[in-house]
Parts: sequence; structure tokens; C-alpha cells
Amino acid sequence: MRNICMTVSYNGASYHGFQTQPQKITIQQQLEQALYQLTFEEIKVTASGRTDAGVHARGQVFNFQTGSQIPIERWCMAMNSRLPDDIVVWEARVVPDDFHARRSAKRKTYRYTMRCGKYPDLFKQNTEFHHPTPLDITAMQDALSCFVGEHDFTSFCSSRSSAESHVRTIFEARLECEPMEPHLQSYAIHIYLTGSGFLYNMVRIIVGTLIEVGEGKRSPSSIRDVLSAKDRALAGPTAMAHGLMLWEVFYGKVAPNA
Amino acid sequence: MRNICMTVSYNGASYHGFQTQPQKITIQQQLEQALYQLTFEEIKVTASGRTDAGVHARGQVFNFQTGSQIPIERWCMAMNSRLPDDIVVWEARVVPDDFHARRSAKRKTYRYTMRCGKYPDLFKQNTEFHHPTPLDITAMQDALSCFVGEHDFTSFCSSRSSAESHVRTIFEARLECEPMEPHLQSYAIHIYLTGSGFLYNMVRIIVGTLIEVGEGKRSPSSIRDVLSAKDRALAGPTAMAHGLMLWEVFYGKVAPNA
Repeated sequence: MRNICMTVSYNGASYHGFQTQPQKITIQQQLEQALYQLTFEEIKVTASGRTDAGVHARGQVFNFQTGSQIPIERWCMAMNSRLPDDIVVWEARVVPDDFHARRSAKRKTYRYTMRCGKYPDLFKQNTEFHHPTPLDITAMQDALSCFVGEHDFTSFCSSRSSAESHVRTIFEARLECEPMEPHLQSYAIHIYLTGSGFLYNMVRIIVGTLIEVGEGKRSPSSIRDVLSAKDRALAGPTAMAHGLMLWEVFYGKVAPNA
Repeated sequence: MRNICMTVSYNGASYHGFQTQPQKITIQQQLEQALYQLTFEEIKVTASGRTDAGVHARGQVFNFQTGSQIPIERWCMAMNSRLPDDIVVWEARVVPDDFHARRSAKRKTYRYTMRCGKYPDLFKQNTEFHHPTPLDITAMQDALSCFVGEHDFTSFCSSRSSAESHVRTIFEARLECEPMEPHLQSYAIHIYLTGSGFLYNMVRIIVGTLIEVGEGKRSPSSIRDVLSAKDRALAGPTAMAHGLMLWEVFYGKVAPNA
């Protein structure tokens, strides 16, 4: 038996999230179905974490055990020819037996993208949340910096979270602004968050709150008060799923990085 | 009555091209339906030219006559709220009575995009033709330069073309190469063609022939022979529609440019 680790991109628009659910089409189900067609083994994959319905991935990572003798350099193409067009495996490697895509992960980066201004870019509508009015970028950057460090993120996670602890560490929080597209009178804002782990809806609630800061509805410094209150009701709304992308998962020396 | 000119982007994936056809959903039909909902007039629009099924537009231009008194600055939003999400009007202006979106056009630019290398970018699959093996960019650039100038493009237009003359002028032909995306081991190549006008399937046949040059199946200098032969059978295949985008239409001083 080998332990194989793969990196996969997917467009989440047509799926009910990553994790297998009865009667729903999910990324996990598509991956396991392709693996079955390829190996005739009933393989269960372990991902670095779930993604919600409509959320995309550039570099989701998963691993699985297999007795298949297929050479490792053939796995990507073999999988892609059995997967739908909106799921692409782009890296495969043999990893040590104790590698576990979720438990071995050291850091994860998510990216959230919004297009700010008059008109959406209709060729990116699946991956950009359209905000029709201008946002105060400087205020958003100030607010974003408040999330860096170790915090209890109870205010920024879904009340349905079942995590034992809501303490997480954000190592890096970055905002990038693309140049204005003159004909659309709009520009894309990317928010990158790198952390030790993320709670249920955490990135989307952080972004929903940042948007309120950008709209002038709350001050950047209010973020610290919201964090310390540990009350979901004080944060902003959960931003739309389609702007969110699992960007990259880091494992230290063991496993794939983009 | 006013003569109003609009610039529109559309994702052609869901449409049977621009021009109205019985029993088919087209861009023109969607625009005229939105205009009817807005003005209660049965307006017929005139575009700068047709686009085929699956072809996109960044800056298609059309005009129409209307008695509506809606102020010009409200037309874009009023149209967009009545159009599907994959059609966005982003410019509207009043033009002289004799302005005609097709006959007044001086130049048009089309862009064709292919992604070259191992993996497609699944977030751009609607607008990039995926070519899985490397292409010889230098050879393609040499071939591309042969199209500049006034030529008889009989070899590079569909045999179904009904145009009286196949002589057209290409003012500019440019190839741009994006940097390699390391994780996808692929990069986008954009081909921009600006001309006085284009025959049926002309850009797609030029691109299909350039791809054969990039694959080493024909030499760059063979383009001149193909042009002078005036024989469609000697050119390459018609490239897939979804990589093509009507980029911009130029009218001199009169009407919109992006």
C-alpha cells in the first residue's frame, strides 16, 4: 500500500461543497468515483479540510491509501480524464505513511475576491463578489491588520461551529488591489488570509465585516472590540461563498506546495 | 427620436450567437427584449457585426432609434437590471442620426486566447482554448506578421461566406504571452487582430492555422503561399469558438471606444 497525496483545483459553483453528503454531488464524491474507476478500489480520501457549497479551490490537498501499481507520474492525467471539466488534479506524489492531509497541515491560505465599482466582470462572475459602490481600501487594510496574531475567533465563526476551541492564529493578512478596468469602472480586491486553521465560515464573516468597514458602517478599530466580545452577533454578515477560494495548504517539508 | 449607441460585454457560452434566429436564444433577442421592457417600443438594434455561437464580446457596439425620454445616463443601469447576468451594457451615448454601428465602424479588434501547457485554468475555461502541448511562439509570431496589410482572405474564410469581396486589411496583429502559471504548468497566449473588417470565421481560421505553425506542422513562410492560393482547403482548421472575443470596435471621433 502507498499513501498518495494530490493537489486539486475546482470550481465549486456546481457542487454542494467538498464533503460527501447523501443525495448531493460533492467534490469528494467525484474524486472517489474517479479513483474507483481508475483502481477498482473503494478509496476514501482525506482532505485538508472541507469547503462549503459554492466555494472554490486553487490548491486543495487530499491523500488516500492505495494498492494500485500505477506509476506516480501518471496519476494526474489518469484522474483528469475521469473527472468533470471543473475539477483538475495538478500534483500527485507518494508521501510517508503517517502523512494526513488535515492533521499534517501547518498553514492554510484562503483568498476572497470582490469586484468593486459600477459593473461586474462577467467573465469572472463565478469567482468575484460584485460590490457596486466604492470601498475605503485604507480602512479595510487597517481593519484587516487587527486579525493578525492569536485570537479567540468566536465572534467570527458560525454559531453552528462544533470546534472545541475557537482560538486560531492568523500569520498573515494581506489586501491586494488590481488596477481599475476603465471600461467596467471597477477593480478587483483580493484578501489573502493565512492561518493555522479556520473555523466554520470564519473567512467569509471576516470579509463580510471588512466590507462594512469599507462602506464606512464601522471603524477599523472596532474589530478589536468585536474580537474580544466573543459574540457572533457583533460581526458583519457572512460574505457570499462564490468569492472564496482555498488558495494553498502548507505542510512544512513533507508535502506539496504550489 | 434619438439615435442611441451602446457598448456591451457578453459571455457567449449560453447563446446561439448575436443575431436573432427563430427558436434560438441570441444576444440580439435579449437586448431587444430588454429594450421593449424598458421603452414599450419594438426596437430593432444594429450591431457592428454578428458574433458566432459561443463567441464572446468585451466591447460589442450596437445602436437603435428610440422616442424614449429616459436620460442617457440612466440607460446602462436600466438595461442591466433587465438583462441576464452574462450580458452587461457598460456605455450608452446619444450619437448623430447618421451613425450606424456596422457601416460607421472603421476598425475592429478581436482577441483569441489559448492556454498552452499541461493543465487548463478551470476558472477561465469558457474563454480559453486549451492546447495541451507546447507551441513555438516565435514561429507563430513570424506567421502572424504575414497577415498584416491588405490581402485577399479567401483561404481564411468559410466557404459559406457570401461576401462580395474577400479583400480585407489587417492593421495590426499582435501576440502576447502571459507568464507561466507554475502550478498549472501552462500559460495563456493572446492573439489580437485589428482589421478593417473580418470575413466569416476569418479570425478562427487564422488562429487554427497559427496553431499548426506553433505545432511545427507548417512553416511561418507558408502563410504567404496559402494567402495567394485563395483556397480554403490549404489553411488550417477553424479554431474553437470559445477562445474568441470581439474586443473593441473603433469609429474615429464619433462613437465609443473603451
